[in-house]
Amino acid sequence: MNRIQDAALRARALKVIPNGMYGHESVRMLPDSFPQFFSKAEGAYIWDADGNRYLDYMCAYGPSLLGYRDERVDAAAQVQAALGDTLTGPSPLMVELAETMVAMVDHADWAMFCKNGTDATTMAMSSARAQTGKRIVLVAKGAYHGAAPWCTPIPAGTVAEDRAHVRTYVYNDVASLEAAVADAGGDLAAVFASPFRHDAFIDQEAPEPAYARRARELCDQTGAMLIVDEVRAGFRLARGSSWSELGVQPDLSAWGKCFANGHPISALLGSDSCREGAGSIYATGSFWLSAVPMAAAIETLKIIRESDYLEHMVRLGDRLRSGLDAAAAGHGFTLRQTGPVQMPQIMFADDPDFRVGYGWAEEMLARGVYMHPWHNMFLCAAMTDADIDLTLAAADDAFAALAVRHGDLEPHPILVALAAATAG
Amino acid sequence: MNRIQDAALRARALKVIPNGMYGHESVRMLPDSFPQFFSKAEGAYIWDADGNRYLDYMCAYGPSLLGYRDERVDAAAQVQAALGDTLTGPSPLMVELAETMVAMVDHADWAMFCKNGTDATTMAMSSARAQTGKRIVLVAKGAYHGAAPWCTPIPAGTVAEDRAHVRTYVYNDVASLEAAVADAGGDLAAVFASPFRHDAFIDQEAPEPAYARRARELCDQTGAMLIVDEVRAGFRLARGSSWSELGVQPDLSAWGKCFANGHPISALLGSDSCREGAGSIYATGSFWLSAVPMAAAIETLKIIRESDYLEHMVRLGDRLRSGLDAAAAGHGFTLRQTGPVQMPQIMFADDPDFRVGYGWAEEMLARGVYMHPWHNMFLCAAMTDADIDLTLAAADDAFAALAVRHGDLEPHPILVALAAATAG
Repeated sequence: MNRIQDAALRARALKVIPNGMYGHESVRMLPDSFPQFFSKAEGAYIWDADGNRYLDYMCAYGPSLLGYRDERVDAAAQVQAALGDTLTGPSPLMVELAETMVAMVDHADWAMFCKNGTDATTMAMSSARAQTGKRIVLVAKGAYHGAAPWCTPIPAGTVAEDRAHVRTYVYNDVASLEAAVADAGGDLAAVFASPFRHDAFIDQEAPEPAYARRARELCDQTGAMLIVDEVRAGFRLARGSSWSELGVQPDLSAWGKCFANGHPISALLGSDSCREGAGSIYATGSFWLSAVPMAAAIETLKIIRESDYLEHMVRLGDRLRSGLDAAAAGHGFTLRQTGPVQMPQIMFADDPDFRVGYGWAEEMLARGVYMHPWHNMFLCAAMTDADIDLTLAAADDAFAALAVRHGDLEPHPILVALAAATAG
Repeated sequence: MNRIQDAALRARALKVIPNGMYGHESVRMLPDSFPQFFSKAEGAYIWDADGNRYLDYMCAYGPSLLGYRDERVDAAAQVQAALGDTLTGPSPLMVELAETMVAMVDHADWAMFCKNGTDATTMAMSSARAQTGKRIVLVAKGAYHGAAPWCTPIPAGTVAEDRAHVRTYVYNDVASLEAAVADAGGDLAAVFASPFRHDAFIDQEAPEPAYARRARELCDQTGAMLIVDEVRAGFRLARGSSWSELGVQPDLSAWGKCFANGHPISALLGSDSCREGAGSIYATGSFWLSAVPMAAAIETLKIIRESDYLEHMVRLGDRLRSGLDAAAAGHGFTLRQTGPVQMPQIMFADDPDFRVGYGWAEEMLARGVYMHPWHNMFLCAAMTDADIDLTLAAADDAFAALAVRHGDLEPHPILVALAAATAG
């Protein structure tokens, strides 16, 4: 594939952006053939700066839930844009959106809106500390809850005190959680949990009901706040709180990425058990009360309630998973497919340094399918059976090509270093 | 004025939002007559939820630089919205925008984009710490640099360690700055400064050239990074770095609010002296690389370069300041008008508990002019001489009404408490 524009943009970017790019959309840890820059998107597809088109299984790392540029959502956004966006106060839409989310998410009695997922998780932490008057926050080891100094996965530029009261436990491990709670003594403010274990580089894990219930019990016993971080998975697992099906209600939940189908907004939802704490913290941002993303969110949430978007994604995800397993087996490969089928993690058996996964991702990309070798992926509702057919045909070809290259594959140097650090 | 819709919205909001609202656009500390909710905006005007129209001297607390819904900026945004916003990677526009800002801001060699002003100031702090390997950060006492745990003006929900290495000095006070630098010993990472002293509740102060230059010298001597926080004032004082006219170049500058004329984007700009540090931190957000605000920013910056927006605002601001002084004097009042005329702070002499300022703001609001009694205000380029005429006529009326009410004015209870805390 032609990469002339992408290469030229990278050369320019290297001059005016540190390392040429930063954050989760940097391709520094992806195969060399992956493009960095994208010019447009529609439905389930993205086009890179050279005009190459890909079926996109990353969905902007989550924000595209219904498909890029969904006409219904963008029409609602445009109606509001013709009235105003960030004004000297919020729009009436803010109240409607708060009422809508409170109605859809079982535990929620109130809502606060912000911009980044990290805003919502940080507000959750501060609200819990303010509510309880305590300091210690427990997070699952390896879980991602944002990029602020207290939670960033890379400590450069932070100081030890940023995590003074942040401690870890092992996801799904009741004994580990109990021990961490006991160690906190009388100073436990909150327990964070992801809806499922969606850490990078590892097989994903569904939440054990016993773990989720024990987390709730321990919070009830100690007065701590249970926080579910729905930023990545929210509304891809359920039409409300992801843990409602387990019968577990948190005190706080953090939301972001997809509930306005890509328009920039995130949210902290809470129950009355943490209303006073949330009301006492000072949290704000220049664009947090902007009306256009709120209009987009109201429309997205209506589609979430009224369409079969979720069942459609699950059905396609099931087809994808079983079809990929069959295609891999036909060429002598064994996949490790984990996570909910609509948020699939796809890695290879016997591939400790990811060289096979990287090779396969390159082969898929060359066939017009954008897949990630070590991060969970995302289906969107704009995907069709034809897209799954296309993916499975590409996969059959890609596995065949990979079988030929198998002995020549090399691990990616940056990834090897990071995987070692993550495992450490 | 009719406040039926606003009252109904406030009652609904009280149920689903803690305290009914939060952050800098909450009207909790404004006069009771101020509306909370706004339905639309155009140019220099906003309409509240009941349809009352106001000439808006807050400009959304800064974001409206050219006027709300500027046609040129919004057209550029729409062109990009028809292609895509947040995708699986950045748009080529990101490189163009970084090149544009590096060309316009003297000290800048590189740019990183984010969403909140707090994102940019926090990344500045982390980049400085990463670059220097040191920890202590100096901020001017009372200065606002955002709402994260390390800098929020209200400590509820934070822990003492959040500010373990954050220390203060007095703005414009060279001896105080020198003492703080000396106290930091060999552990000074950064000195923060606002372009001018724009703290709430106080007379604003222009930066003393000796202070700005000494800050640069001390950073040069210690290897610390000088950070100018341009989030609030950037591009309202100059077409580039606000301290260039003083001959002082920072290592880092944080930008936000208005450089995309209200579309949600902020930025950290840096010189090569801090490129390695910035490149080593992990900073990211779901929507940081979204293309639509970048398109809006490129167009806004073009207008900033090519139009007389700045001279126009200064000319109107001069008329406003002298006209208000004359109107006040005509009714026996003395104003304390400080700050750049395009970012005016207007308070009253002999008004320690702000009761006169609050009364006047109420009278102005009743006459269709939205002014703030204790926060700096913002002019925008969409304002006209007719708007200034309207303001001065309203002010003459408002001072007359205020003179009648003068003996009956009472201080606002929440404000009194906060002012006391701020002064402490």
